[in-house]
Amino acid sequence: MSNCIFCKIAAGEIPANKLYEDDEMIAFHDIHPKAPVHFLLIPKLHVDSLAHCDASHQAMLGKLLLLAPKLAAEQGLGDGFKTAINTGAGGGQEVFHLHLHVLGNK
Amino acid sequence: MSNCIFCKIAAGEIPANKLYEDDEMIAFHDIHPKAPVHFLLIPKLHVDSLAHCDASHQAMLGKLLLLAPKLAAEQGLGDGFKTAINTGAGGGQEVFHLHLHVLGNK
Repeated sequence: MSNCIFCKIAAGEIPANKLYEDDEMIAFHDIHPKAPVHFLLIPKLHVDSLAHCDASHQAMLGKLLLLAPKLAAEQGLGDGFKTAINTGAGGGQEVFHLHLHVLGNK
Repeated sequence: MSNCIFCKIAAGEIPANKLYEDDEMIAFHDIHPKAPVHFLLIPKLHVDSLAHCDASHQAMLGKLLLLAPKLAAEQGLGDGFKTAINTGAGGGQEVFHLHLHVLGNK
């Protein structure tokens, strides 16, 4: 998506404070953190929101949730953390590229 | 898990206000709702938390996230909703059986 800021981050066209990257996913620190640790984990593939996912996204969604605790532990959140996805305007979604928030206190 | 309240709900041993059930998953309204609509979606399979999941749980986790928007829409949250998983004591997890919170305003 040419105007999607998260697609541009995934493509390396916009800088971000990355903490993880593989072929399918990228994680970077939120620029407006709401907790001492607050990063976003996104698929590189553009999907507007969780409500736009279908069965073809099942493995990607599972991987997103599996990666979260690994990255959280690496960020010092071994005692616990919160994961959240906001979907749609009414759900507080601000960037319409699916992203998982991971938040916690070190 | 013999002492797990969510396993007992999944087994039908404790009543819950269910809104969905299939072979693998069950969804029920939170007894202490933090929004006009607040339900929990859980796998029937016991897993303590997201941090206890491994690759064998990937499909289940993907299904959990795919089901959320469908059930949210059925509950009148077509304009948007929030999904959250709390992991570990430090993450605010209260019941140690993996569960996805789905919250929204009708």
